[in-house]
Amino acid sequence: MVEIRRHFHQHPELSFQEVQTAHYIKAYYEKLGVEVRGNVGGNGVVAKIYGGKPGKTIALRADFDALPIQEENDVPYKSLVPGVMHACGHDGHTATLLVLAKALHEMREELSGTYVMIHQHAEEYAPGGAKAMIEDGCLDGVDFIYGTHLWATVPTGTVHYRVGPFMAAADRFEVTLQGKGGHGAQPHKTKDTIVAASQFVMNLQQIVSRRIKPIDPAVVSVGSFVAENAFNVIADKVRLIGTARTFSEESRNLIEEELEKVIKGTCYANDCTYEFTYFRGYPAVVNHPAETGIVVESAGQVPDVEKVEEMEPDMAGEDFAYYLQHVKGSFFFTGAQPEGVSQPYPHHHPKFEINERAMLIAAKTLGMAALNSQD
Amino acid sequence: MVEIRRHFHQHPELSFQEVQTAHYIKAYYEKLGVEVRGNVGGNGVVAKIYGGKPGKTIALRADFDALPIQEENDVPYKSLVPGVMHACGHDGHTATLLVLAKALHEMREELSGTYVMIHQHAEEYAPGGAKAMIEDGCLDGVDFIYGTHLWATVPTGTVHYRVGPFMAAADRFEVTLQGKGGHGAQPHKTKDTIVAASQFVMNLQQIVSRRIKPIDPAVVSVGSFVAENAFNVIADKVRLIGTARTFSEESRNLIEEELEKVIKGTCYANDCTYEFTYFRGYPAVVNHPAETGIVVESAGQVPDVEKVEEMEPDMAGEDFAYYLQHVKGSFFFTGAQPEGVSQPYPHHHPKFEINERAMLIAAKTLGMAALNSQD
Amino acid sequence: MVEIRRHFHQHPELSFQEVQTAHYIKAYYEKLGVEVRGNVGGNGVVAKIYGGKPGKTIALRADFDALPIQEENDVPYKSLVPGVMHACGHDGHTATLLVLAKALHEMREELSGTYVMIHQHAEEYAPGGAKAMIEDGCLDGVDFIYGTHLWATVPTGTVHYRVGPFMAAADRFEVTLQGKGGHGAQPHKTKDTIVAASQFVMNLQQIVSRRIKPIDPAVVSVGSFVAENAFNVIADKVRLIGTARTFSEESRNLIEEELEKVIKGTCYANDCTYEFTYFRGYPAVVNHPAETGIVVESAGQVPDVEKVEEMEPDMAGEDFAYYLQHVKGSFFFTGAQPEGVSQPYPHHHPKFEINERAMLIAAKTLGMAALNSQD
Amino acid sequence: MVEIRRHFHQHPELSFQEVQTAHYIKAYYEKLGVEVRGNVGGNGVVAKIYGGKPGKTIALRADFDALPIQEENDVPYKSLVPGVMHACGHDGHTATLLVLAKALHEMREELSGTYVMIHQHAEEYAPGGAKAMIEDGCLDGVDFIYGTHLWATVPTGTVHYRVGPFMAAADRFEVTLQGKGGHGAQPHKTKDTIVAASQFVMNLQQIVSRRIKPIDPAVVSVGSFVAENAFNVIADKVRLIGTARTFSEESRNLIEEELEKVIKGTCYANDCTYEFTYFRGYPAVVNHPAETGIVVESAGQVPDVEKVEEMEPDMAGEDFAYYLQHVKGSFFFTGAQPEGVSQPYPHHHPKFEINERAMLIAAKTLGMAALNSQD
Repeated sequence: MVEIRRHFHQHPELSFQEVQTAHYIKAYYEKLGVEVRGNVGGNGVVAKIYGGKPGKTIALRADFDALPIQEENDVPYKSLVPGVMHACGHDGHTATLLVLAKALHEMREELSGTYVMIHQHAEEYAPGGAKAMIEDGCLDGVDFIYGTHLWATVPTGTVHYRVGPFMAAADRFEVTLQGKGGHGAQPHKTKDTIVAASQFVMNLQQIVSRRIKPIDPAVVSVGSFVAENAFNVIADKVRLIGTARTFSEESRNLIEEELEKVIKGTCYANDCTYEFTYFRGYPAVVNHPAETGIVVESAGQVPDVEKVEEMEPDMAGEDFAYYLQHVKGSFFFTGAQPEGVSQPYPHHHPKFEINERAMLIAAKTLGMAALNSQD
Repeated sequence: MVEIRRHFHQHPELSFQEVQTAHYIKAYYEKLGVEVRGNVGGNGVVAKIYGGKPGKTIALRADFDALPIQEENDVPYKSLVPGVMHACGHDGHTATLLVLAKALHEMREELSGTYVMIHQHAEEYAPGGAKAMIEDGCLDGVDFIYGTHLWATVPTGTVHYRVGPFMAAADRFEVTLQGKGGHGAQPHKTKDTIVAASQFVMNLQQIVSRRIKPIDPAVVSVGSFVAENAFNVIADKVRLIGTARTFSEESRNLIEEELEKVIKGTCYANDCTYEFTYFRGYPAVVNHPAETGIVVESAGQVPDVEKVEEMEPDMAGEDFAYYLQHVKGSFFFTGAQPEGVSQPYPHHHPKFEINERAMLIAAKTLGMAALNSQD
Repeated sequence: MVEIRRHFHQHPELSFQEVQTAHYIKAYYEKLGVEVRGNVGGNGVVAKIYGGKPGKTIALRADFDALPIQEENDVPYKSLVPGVMHACGHDGHTATLLVLAKALHEMREELSGTYVMIHQHAEEYAPGGAKAMIEDGCLDGVDFIYGTHLWATVPTGTVHYRVGPFMAAADRFEVTLQGKGGHGAQPHKTKDTIVAASQFVMNLQQIVSRRIKPIDPAVVSVGSFVAENAFNVIADKVRLIGTARTFSEESRNLIEEELEKVIKGTCYANDCTYEFTYFRGYPAVVNHPAETGIVVESAGQVPDVEKVEEMEPDMAGEDFAYYLQHVKGSFFFTGAQPEGVSQPYPHHHPKFEINERAMLIAAKTLGMAALNSQD
Repeated sequence: MVEIRRHFHQHPELSFQEVQTAHYIKAYYEKLGVEVRGNVGGNGVVAKIYGGKPGKTIALRADFDALPIQEENDVPYKSLVPGVMHACGHDGHTATLLVLAKALHEMREELSGTYVMIHQHAEEYAPGGAKAMIEDGCLDGVDFIYGTHLWATVPTGTVHYRVGPFMAAADRFEVTLQGKGGHGAQPHKTKDTIVAASQFVMNLQQIVSRRIKPIDPAVVSVGSFVAENAFNVIADKVRLIGTARTFSEESRNLIEEELEKVIKGTCYANDCTYEFTYFRGYPAVVNHPAETGIVVESAGQVPDVEKVEEMEPDMAGEDFAYYLQHVKGSFFFTGAQPEGVSQPYPHHHPKFEINERAMLIAAKTLGMAALNSQD
């Protein structure tokens, strides 16, 4: 499992460009003699293991895309692709599912039901791979679905679950402010868009602090603010990109409306114009109660699992959300904090690392949940 | 002169309420046997001294209103009226002119022309007394006018003059922002006007920093920001009052327009409504070249004057501006820094004080300018 | 019950000044022949009804202070005290408990246990009356406590409960910014505190939007911003007062720290100094599970109750929190939306009104919960 | 002259890279038989024409560098260098001086004194070429210096002069704010530098609006604000670059100090760190009175000059300032508005154009000023 994961780690591919990774996965199943279909909804790969006895159909999902980050870890299996890195653990997810699939395949005669291995591309970049894979039939006939995320900031040996809203709806917005550029010494002949955009950034803080119901968690972040000019120029244009996170549709709608209101008012006050686009990303991941119960029960049966805890909702997004809109299931976190590290690097960090031992825990918990769902 | 000034200092009266002060002045002239008219354009008093020989008619002006400030000086002649104080030296102006008038009256036989003593009420509060006094005829037949301000932060013995724009147009604006009040714990049910008004204060800084031509001096200040509520309330309403200072009509108009633009945009972004009123106060004081030349020449002839300097424009306002729109003349500053004080208190300060010796310098310079205008 | 409530409504008294109200309550119990103690921890009144049979001791609490608000309702029983109003329903709470006490007293022979009627003063203003009454022994020997709030924005007939954090910790902060005042035309000689304070208001929005964990509800509101000056002045000083609401001690501590950080940085940037005081108000109301279960069960037994619903946490504060730190119990909301009103005025509004019929529901639910706690 | 100018226009070279331009100039003088020195303080070229009679030594200066701008004019002599353009008229300055030099050379026998042609590189980019050329001796023995700028927004036929401060000191500053990056969904684990930098941009507006003396013109502009990241990231770092313009050293120093104060306070409030560098650019151009008088007189003697006007100070910078710190002289604007164009494009615009006829006016005025300085 470690070997497979390290292979992927060295050869990361960006979302929607995971051709070699998909090829590797497909070849793996073909070599095992497992039924496998490639190019599902894009680069997705779906394998099916048929148990010897009748039963439910259980899907297990692992994503396999990487991120546009330059790895800063100094390890033998460091990314070989400049500027691309498995900085979120999807390499581990894939290795986990491949090895679990092999085990299920080996004991297929004794198993009831069918096991669908969903290897999903493009989790990191909306619209994501899940939606297209569902449209391409990956959930057809599926009764339940489970998935996990290796989580580097949770101690290895701990499994985190939650009923209901678990991960947030993750939207993206883009704003371009258009003023009137000019010479830095003559502000009165210009409309300074850096000033207007700074006002906008300040003003939008109030969407969360004043306009959203305090008990309904929401985040609005501007991640990118670009107006690159000479020192003696006044910026003609600023481009901002950001994200909004919510658990309720009400807050999601409110943020979209209020963002435009703040932009429009700020532009009016500054004699600027704007373009504003709000892209709805993944919806919130909402776990089903009974299936989450199965995860809790299953994790308790895994010897390496020391703790099974209910966790707080997480503002990150996951396109696993789409699967749960179609079939019952649950998504959980498998603690993967590296050994002997008290302050692990967060996901998406150039020095991100997981504890490879956690892959085994993830595999066992997922496998157990699949088997327990037959009852 | 000192005695008269101290009398006024002890009995200050607010703008438009200067009944006793006007009465004192009128009685003074009556006692001298000088022609005097009271209630000119309100509480104004105008006296006329006719020289024995024909000549030009020269007006000299002194204002006599006080300010709503509680005096903090510990002097024997401290204000006897709680909360009211001659904190701008108008007591000194009046004493100066009264004593000068007496001197002119005594030498009237040798004088050419006519000397009009304009004792003006209400300089401190727009619309001011000058406009009404002019409408009531105080400038009728006047050829030239001069006036001075005792200036506590300029060394005694120095006279400051300037050709052209000398003191700024002084406007007032009032803004009421109306949001929706509520409980401090429930911002999402309110429109928080303290936040909106704070944004407005921040945003209006750009009128001066970005929109006004840098070489055209302008000031926009918010002096009052009031939303007084319990700690656990969100403010329904905020009331702001401020001032704008300019030397050009172009900037004056721009500030009025831009203020409304900033308010309107800020309100749009914050779902608030507003009332905005912009009151045009005194126009800029613009001194005439030839008459300013006479002031410079005259000051040079006064033995106590050690220095006659061109000064920078001052952003303060003065309704002497109106007189200069009707007749030629000049307004100047007479240094009045208290003896032995290196950091004199500024005008309008509760500990404001003048050097009483400066009144004599002011009287002599004004008198000399009046006489020199006959040539 | 209506009559008693209207009496209190007409004679409201501010927190810590409720002498007549306390006197009325004490006299009421004395007339009934119930054991009563006045001046408990201030103006508090505690009555005890001893059942004929042994059992648990159950406390029921009602608060009786009013608010500094000028009533705008046009009703026959309108407040007779200018600027003071029962705008939060405490008049109804007190009437409810008095009438319930009378009923319990009448059936005392059949009752098990003891019933402690806690009439608490000063709920509206920290440090509140609860703490002092507890220190003065009002909970001595008490096993369980219940309380309710009539809630005008919840339909009459509905009871709202919640296990765990129910109402927020409610803190108060005061900030005075000291700059350097001066003339509105000379900003460069001053330190403009209105600008500095506006920056502070803008900057503190980020405490909630950026620094508090998004899933931990928190509110920071500035309710009062006062710098009252003439239009042509630059403010020497601004005084701000506000509130912070939290459910966790972690966020509570963070807000206090971050507020000071924002103030200190803002003052540094503006050359101002500050005084900052953060007053810890009531802690969060945290309901105990079993006793909340009793409330739910009891409400279900009241014929007029149509709906018993779990509610979301509320950011308002309540010093009932202190009782729950000492004995087990639960606090709930009794819907009191006025008949035929679809948009009821919120609590603390000058036109606030309750449905008096809700008092009966409150009395029955409280009474039932008290009796059910004996089992 | 037109031909020479168009040659330069087609072959623009960036500041400090003007090798071919310098070569062309040097060859021109060599061909004429005029004494010429290349590589003066870098790419500068200095030619000397000795009159037949003794007299003063007069320097005339023209700059010859271009700008990093892609030309958008559709003319036969459009720039042949992609992304580089003579968008400020320096091509015209150089052609003017070369042709004037030829004329002076031709009449050298009749002339008194010596004429130094300073062809300066790198005016557009601090530290500029003037300083190095002076250090390399270009002003040795020089008594007076004159220079002009063709100015496209002033009507052709008009000459603009000003005694005293004429063009501003032009400084550059760079600020890097370092926070702590992270995931856009987890602001509480980061220090959001886009928010901190936006605050900084807002707060620095007050340097001009509140801290600089209103009558002392100053500009602070942020021209570049760059934090380029994915949408779901919180920015680790922001880089800002800007310019400050002043006429007095007092304001210049104040801006540098206040900028750091605002940055430091803002960083404190936001838990960020910073790097701040303030680069002093060219000082203010301060014209000498007598020599400016010579310019006025000389312009009046040029037949094509219709108007000679005193102009307002301009906030743009010019390294001609350095020459005036060493010898007496004056810098003036020669109107060069294109024929039939009412809204000419400003300097540094991709569609900037001059009226080539203005070169003749410039040459005649400069030449006349040189000759008139002999008296």
